[in-house]
Amino acid sequence: MLTINRLSLSDAGPLLEGARARAEAIGVPMCIAVTDESGNLIAFERMDGGKITSITIAIDKAFTAAAARKPTHEYGEAAQPGSAAYGINSAIAGRLLVVAGGLPIVVDGVVVGGIGISSGTPGQDREVAEAAIAAFGSGQ
Amino acid sequence: MLTINRLSLSDAGPLLEGARARAEAIGVPMCIAVTDESGNLIAFERMDGGKITSITIAIDKAFTAAAARKPTHEYGEAAQPGSAAYGINSAIAGRLLVVAGGLPIVVDGVVVGGIGISSGTPGQDREVAEAAIAAFGSGQ
Amino acid sequence: MLTINRLSLSDAGPLLEGARARAEAIGVPMCIAVTDESGNLIAFERMDGGKITSITIAIDKAFTAAAARKPTHEYGEAAQPGSAAYGINSAIAGRLLVVAGGLPIVVDGVVVGGIGISSGTPGQDREVAEAAIAAFGSGQ
Amino acid sequence: MLTINRLSLSDAGPLLEGARARAEAIGVPMCIAVTDESGNLIAFERMDGGKITSITIAIDKAFTAAAARKPTHEYGEAAQPGSAAYGINSAIAGRLLVVAGGLPIVVDGVVVGGIGISSGTPGQDREVAEAAIAAFGSGQ
Repeated sequence: MLTINRLSLSDAGPLLEGARARAEAIGVPMCIAVTDESGNLIAFERMDGGKITSITIAIDKAFTAAAARKPTHEYGEAAQPGSAAYGINSAIAGRLLVVAGGLPIVVDGVVVGGIGISSGTPGQDREVAEAAIAAFGSGQ
Repeated sequence: MLTINRLSLSDAGPLLEGARARAEAIGVPMCIAVTDESGNLIAFERMDGGKITSITIAIDKAFTAAAARKPTHEYGEAAQPGSAAYGINSAIAGRLLVVAGGLPIVVDGVVVGGIGISSGTPGQDREVAEAAIAAFGSGQ
Repeated sequence: MLTINRLSLSDAGPLLEGARARAEAIGVPMCIAVTDESGNLIAFERMDGGKITSITIAIDKAFTAAAARKPTHEYGEAAQPGSAAYGINSAIAGRLLVVAGGLPIVVDGVVVGGIGISSGTPGQDREVAEAAIAAFGSGQ
Repeated sequence: MLTINRLSLSDAGPLLEGARARAEAIGVPMCIAVTDESGNLIAFERMDGGKITSITIAIDKAFTAAAARKPTHEYGEAAQPGSAAYGINSAIAGRLLVVAGGLPIVVDGVVVGGIGISSGTPGQDREVAEAAIAAFGSGQ
């Protein structure tokens, strides 16, 4: 039998708040998604002005980061032409996102969830995801 | 040019809270989805213990209620064998939900969004959706 | 080699106009789709106030009617529990619509296209589709 | 509550006409799609000879341009190997188009819809989309 550690809905609170605060600070309304360790959605917010396309992209970034236990930007590097994971971005009906902005949430060395951010540049999305993780970590 | 009224993210707050309060009162952890008037997701919460299948079902109930401007339980009646809309439940790749728990959110006679609830019985899902609408309305 | 007769874009004009006129007469803004004989879209209009869910449903009603060469309401009868085509409504990822409002367009006994209407009751959708066909026929 | 501006069906008229006129001028029959600000289809025309594959591509270019508020050719640059948004083209089940020919429609600095063109070269598609926007703008 396995015992799994998984984010609760209340754990998602500081992640959403941390993401929202950084998004407001840089002036980019974001879509923010938090999943559990299996990649299934726990919480989502589309800030006023977040992009419609980013609803799915944020959810799928969080899914990828949690379920593959890897930041989406690392997939971005590995998926370049000539690299080992080239073409992986169209897997799972396109749900495997290789653009920055998806991060696994790690507690005690174990992935317990994922966060995905979308609506800015990939760099902005990643910055906001990192701020969310920092806010979550400081409350642990 | 058309002018459209749409829920903001802050409008989604009392809807989520109203749903959560009723879900706790009846002891059924729920998936709660709020969409805008076009059926696109604004906010989502899966309460601890909410069903994984209900993630998509709650989102699609809210989508149906907003985008078709009709409670999902009314579709349920119209989609019975022998009734006029029989078979409509598999439309839009199965996103058109005809099970109770999806309600349009109406302000000044206009649909501005939708709420979808899933994880309980259809009757419980509808009760929680109605409680969310009541909580939203009392704050207007 | 086969020679196929197929609606042109200019043929779609009177179909759209006929549908729009009847939709306005009954006060129900509709989604109107016209396909060719293979079920591929030629023209589409969403009248102001047409439902978002009806975009796909109108297109898929026209697809079904043209590509299966059968009015969608006839499928509705054949798809009832206990009938021969029971369950057919979820075929083709749910694109096979069995609700009234899709009609093949027949010229000289041959299906040359399809029309699909959605946003009203199934009866209204069918009425508007029939009005479109009548408008098309009177201009032949 | 948010207030949103959105193209009406009558606004789509000059866009379709402008696109058609330029498509005829360059001798390339096109698929032409117009969406609202959320990326949902308002109007569509496949000119006689327009490609079947282009039905979906035109609709998805318009969806991308409106819902992400960005010309599709800008995504094309950002999605090149080694660039930040590499791999984004397979997102949303492949609906996020990064090929030229999709443009947001902007009125008073706000995206109110999108236009998508397909059947020519990407350069021709973009030229026709720009002609549609110009025709729309001159009628404002």
